[in-house]
Amino acid sequence: MSNGKNRVWRLAKRPEGTASDNDLHLAEEAMPEPGEGEALIRTVYLSLDPTNRIWMSDMDQYMEPVKIGDPMRGIIAGQVVKSNTPKMKEGELVMGVGHWADYMLTDGRGLSVIGKPGQVPLAELFGVCSAVGPTAYFGLLHLCEPKPGETVVVTAAAGAVGSVVGQIAKMKGCRAVGIAGSDEKCQWIKDECGFDAAINYKTEDVGAMLDRYCPEGVDILFENVGGSIMDEVLARMNDFSRIALCGLISQYNATEPVPGPYNFKQILMHRIKVQGFITSDFAKDYPKAMAELTQWMGEGKLKFRLDIDKGLENALTSLNKLYDGSNQGKLMVEVSEVAAA
Amino acid sequence: MSNGKNRVWRLAKRPEGTASDNDLHLAEEAMPEPGEGEALIRTVYLSLDPTNRIWMSDMDQYMEPVKIGDPMRGIIAGQVVKSNTPKMKEGELVMGVGHWADYMLTDGRGLSVIGKPGQVPLAELFGVCSAVGPTAYFGLLHLCEPKPGETVVVTAAAGAVGSVVGQIAKMKGCRAVGIAGSDEKCQWIKDECGFDAAINYKTEDVGAMLDRYCPEGVDILFENVGGSIMDEVLARMNDFSRIALCGLISQYNATEPVPGPYNFKQILMHRIKVQGFITSDFAKDYPKAMAELTQWMGEGKLKFRLDIDKGLENALTSLNKLYDGSNQGKLMVEVSEVAAA
Repeated sequence: MSNGKNRVWRLAKRPEGTASDNDLHLAEEAMPEPGEGEALIRTVYLSLDPTNRIWMSDMDQYMEPVKIGDPMRGIIAGQVVKSNTPKMKEGELVMGVGHWADYMLTDGRGLSVIGKPGQVPLAELFGVCSAVGPTAYFGLLHLCEPKPGETVVVTAAAGAVGSVVGQIAKMKGCRAVGIAGSDEKCQWIKDECGFDAAINYKTEDVGAMLDRYCPEGVDILFENVGGSIMDEVLARMNDFSRIALCGLISQYNATEPVPGPYNFKQILMHRIKVQGFITSDFAKDYPKAMAELTQWMGEGKLKFRLDIDKGLENALTSLNKLYDGSNQGKLMVEVSEVAAA
Repeated sequence: MSNGKNRVWRLAKRPEGTASDNDLHLAEEAMPEPGEGEALIRTVYLSLDPTNRIWMSDMDQYMEPVKIGDPMRGIIAGQVVKSNTPKMKEGELVMGVGHWADYMLTDGRGLSVIGKPGQVPLAELFGVCSAVGPTAYFGLLHLCEPKPGETVVVTAAAGAVGSVVGQIAKMKGCRAVGIAGSDEKCQWIKDECGFDAAINYKTEDVGAMLDRYCPEGVDILFENVGGSIMDEVLARMNDFSRIALCGLISQYNATEPVPGPYNFKQILMHRIKVQGFITSDFAKDYPKAMAELTQWMGEGKLKFRLDIDKGLENALTSLNKLYDGSNQGKLMVEVSEVAAA
């Protein structure tokens, strides 16, 4: 294994607008050797997430930006190839913060052992439970405290997080209205995920449709997008409504300063609570969330789609599907296969 | 008394930009006669507040807009002239929601009896405790939960609410930094109100001064203004910081759509909580707030300035001082004098 080469996506420069091959390049490098206290991890799946584009930039953000020349950061599922640390054993499966690379060294920080091959459905567990599920869970339940009968609007509703938000909202007795970018996506969230209504923002008048589907106004907005769609929802929010601000994907490729919502004053007029969050803020509540999420998955109550591209070399092309909305479900790249135990 | 005339400011049309005599006119009308269950109130003080301009507009807002042709709504302190209701007796002093008028009829709703002439320092109690003090109290203490050592930034800091916010912040062991519109105001909030630092946004580089006075970032923003100053503060807010959104006075006279803060994404990146509020949301906690505020006033711990103009006919001219910042302290109009008990 260590005679091979290791491919690593490195950040060459900060992208302006959509990230391209000029910004990240795939370098072929020598296989790293784990030192004392280290392990060598082979990437099995690389998760592609809207926040990846934030990490490439030097905007003020919630983690350190990736440094120029460094391996691109990504959430990975991997397998331990060689271990000089008691924290993980050869053959075990791990999940956490890693690199866009075939292999990486770790001292164990940021990666958790999740089991042995064959013990867990890795793609599903990684795709739904590593970040997506907890993000939906904490954002909706902890920040917005939905009550039965309330109306929950979700943007990017056919996305990995959004589709889970709507399903949890339904479990809690709420009305779920999703906004997505194609008829196919709208159909899927209604038919499979159980949303009460869906709005195709590319072909429909979002304001008029919100008026139709939210006749009693909006109590909760789970916001992934920002921009004009957020303004349409803000205009219809009730007194004491809540916004979980999970993402602003419409802005991540912007090359000019982006104004905040024109309906910002609604926050004052309707005494709205807006709370930005990232999932790791809720680390202490992870076990409870994971237990509930995996139970719902086991009971078939959580529908999801995995959109798995093959080949580390396709990571960047794949990532950009998130920004034009052409992915269908949780996007990831299969970098290698799990080796038998 | 009832042989006299009653002057009433009535809303003639919705203002565009700054409100003028074309939008409100002072009508001379017959003195109203209280019917069964009603009382006649003579206005003593009329409070002028930034929110008055909102009520004149038909924007989506937290109360019904004033209807065209109706008396302009205002917070008043008054005296009962004649009463056909057991809720109030002739000669008693009242505070609450009333009209821009010499006299008004009430069935008691929206007005509270606060005592008899000579029992209370009416101007001070009305100016500081009717709305200003509770607004500062609830916005800072209930929504932002300041901890000792935290940095609190206040916009419109020499305004009635802002100056109280800074003083309560200091009592709670915080660092208070105020932003105001003149050297005189900055001096006053530092020397009299005990703010640690003050920034004159008309003559100083707000961003550079925030860097200087908030070297460890901003934990709490008490926002009264909006616009570019809010953006400068947003750029410097810490993880898990809080914003009490109390007002957006920079926008109330706007004639074009106003964009939200360009640094809106900071709410996401730094997991900021933004909460809009109005004081009446906290009605159940009023007694405790009033008790503390009046105690602080009695102990001389709360400094304040009253900016009292004379004559109902000057109400509109006086109001517009709020929007160009030429008022100094809590702005009100003295409409009549308290009659001896």
